[in-house]
Amino acid sequence: MLEELKLTKYDKSNEYSYTFGIFPTFELVKNRYNEVLKIIFSTKLKMSEDIEKLVQICKEKKIKVEYNDKLINRLASKENCFVIGVFKKFISSLCSNKNNLVLYHPSDMGNMGTIMRTMLGFNINNLIIIKPAVDYFNPKVIRASMGAIFSLNIVEFDSLEEYLNFSKNKKYFFMLKGKKVLGKFKIEDGKFDLIFGNEASGLPDDLLDYDESVVIKHSDKIDSLNLPISVGIALYEFSKSSL
Amino acid sequence: MLEELKLTKYDKSNEYSYTFGIFPTFELVKNRYNEVLKIIFSTKLKMSEDIEKLVQICKEKKIKVEYNDKLINRLASKENCFVIGVFKKFISSLCSNKNNLVLYHPSDMGNMGTIMRTMLGFNINNLIIIKPAVDYFNPKVIRASMGAIFSLNIVEFDSLEEYLNFSKNKKYFFMLKGKKVLGKFKIEDGKFDLIFGNEASGLPDDLLDYDESVVIKHSDKIDSLNLPISVGIALYEFSKSSL
Repeated sequence: MLEELKLTKYDKSNEYSYTFGIFPTFELVKNRYNEVLKIIFSTKLKMSEDIEKLVQICKEKKIKVEYNDKLINRLASKENCFVIGVFKKFISSLCSNKNNLVLYHPSDMGNMGTIMRTMLGFNINNLIIIKPAVDYFNPKVIRASMGAIFSLNIVEFDSLEEYLNFSKNKKYFFMLKGKKVLGKFKIEDGKFDLIFGNEASGLPDDLLDYDESVVIKHSDKIDSLNLPISVGIALYEFSKSSL
Repeated sequence: MLEELKLTKYDKSNEYSYTFGIFPTFELVKNRYNEVLKIIFSTKLKMSEDIEKLVQICKEKKIKVEYNDKLINRLASKENCFVIGVFKKFISSLCSNKNNLVLYHPSDMGNMGTIMRTMLGFNINNLIIIKPAVDYFNPKVIRASMGAIFSLNIVEFDSLEEYLNFSKNKKYFFMLKGKKVLGKFKIEDGKFDLIFGNEASGLPDDLLDYDESVVIKHSDKIDSLNLPISVGIALYEFSKSSL
């Protein structure tokens, strides 16, 4: 079955996606080995400790390894890449009774990957995405996440309402007009959700009166902090006591 | 003189650089109008309030405006861009007796631009760059900064020693092995420098004993936070009392 698959350049409608480069590929085989179809090596690949480790783990997990320059060029023509992991897109479910990070209408793939990596750095493993949103399995997201995506639980919701009905955690909506200033209020005990809006348009104003709305104070010389920076600062502040 | 200039695709050795798009071009004419050679519009540009404002400010500052699709295509072939600002690279000097952000061997243009914007958001206007470093006038930096570069004072140093001799501010070196944990110590009054290392290799270990070394605590599931996120968190923590 796998052999019959004609692998093509990534497209959202594909059942599989790719990791480009050693680092995310390593995270893939370490954390999601059941989903791996195969690992493709370029014949130009130079041996290194990292590659040895990767080969070793492929052996242990009985993951197929193939040397195929043509395929690498087809899948990653612009990427100057010597290792590709091919994996089946997987469905994950959220760990219940955990904190969640929520992205409402995220539109930038690099931002989403950076946020995934930062979440992992602050021990938040549940990511909720409210659609419309960029395709989180796009190799650009995976690369920006440096493979963090393979350690996270990710669930998409079709609407804000669906999410609001789902989560019982205390909700902190990050908004420029937020009523509380981050760092100037006591964070309650218990599970929380941190919710961030779209890069350009933020969150809908009517959320200002739903649970808590929070602003990260910045100077008036910029319109807003960029999204991954805001998320990083919020995760830092909310994790302070636990790290 | 200006008319004789044959403008070419950006190169580090050029005397001039470019802003691509309305937003950074607006910041350019607002903050560095003396350095502007001209503004180039595409004939495909659609009128908007923002464009009106830009045209108005060009008139006030007697900045030359030109409609030239060919030139736009030559300078920004891949950018899908309708406005370009052309400006002479300028030399700035640091405001004395202010806080500084210091980047040691920064290697990523997008990161540098994002950091510039974040600095402006936290009222830090002095940027010190220790070479080797990416070219901060590259249009990619300017775009990532969203024009924040035109509100900053930026100075390059040839070596760490040169910088250490120059600045009398209290120095906080951000390092994975840092001795103090950000958020868990009292920040002294007085001017400070926040110093961040290269994306891949960080700062030299011998700085651990120079003034203060600081770590931003994160989980062991990632090697390190990414550079702009670390800078954002540090700026947030150090600006808390002042914003």
